[in-house]
Amino acid sequence: MENLHMCPKFEAAFELLGKRWTGLIIRSLLDGAKRFSDMQAIIPNLSARMLTERFKELEEKGIITRKVYPEMPVRIEYELTEKGKDLKKSMDQIQVWAEKWSNS
Amino acid sequence: MENLHMCPKFEAAFELLGKRWTGLIIRSLLDGAKRFSDMQAIIPNLSARMLTERFKELEEKGIITRKVYPEMPVRIEYELTEKGKDLKKSMDQIQVWAEKWSNS
Repeated sequence: MENLHMCPKFEAAFELLGKRWTGLIIRSLLDGAKRFSDMQAIIPNLSARMLTERFKELEEKGIITRKVYPEMPVRIEYELTEKGKDLKKSMDQIQVWAEKWSNS
Repeated sequence: MENLHMCPKFEAAFELLGKRWTGLIIRSLLDGAKRFSDMQAIIPNLSARMLTERFKELEEKGIITRKVYPEMPVRIEYELTEKGKDLKKSMDQIQVWAEKWSNS
């Protein structure tokens, strides 16, 4: 089993993306940087507390960055890093699978 | 957000594959049907109790089937369904991503 040693990284990736809202947050950010209030408008069922938590996790994993623009009032935007953008193919692939087999 | 409604299926797929050992079990079965004892030899760190639990989950999700051959002694094998085999592309894609970005 040549892949045995890859397992933890692989599982960590799936575990992260399997968390509620994470996939949808990443999908939304694939359109471009968003402010906190933009995300709340896009995903109305997602509470501010949960969104804060998810943003923090994704930042820690290097998937998003938080940019502070020193304007008045201060503008804060969240955007995908290169690592984050690179998840698109994997997410598309899983989505195809999930759609295809959803009734079985 | 056209993908909003796909979210639960998508998350369920990631959640399943994010569970410890699940990815490795599926990878092993991509080589062909295996007996319980084969799996234990391939993944020595995986306890019998955990393997039983994972097999049960995967069977419930329609990803593997359990085949009983009425021989003496009875032979029981676990194999991927078409739905299970169809996960290969997604798993490969995530693995590529995980490998590529593992140091960042």
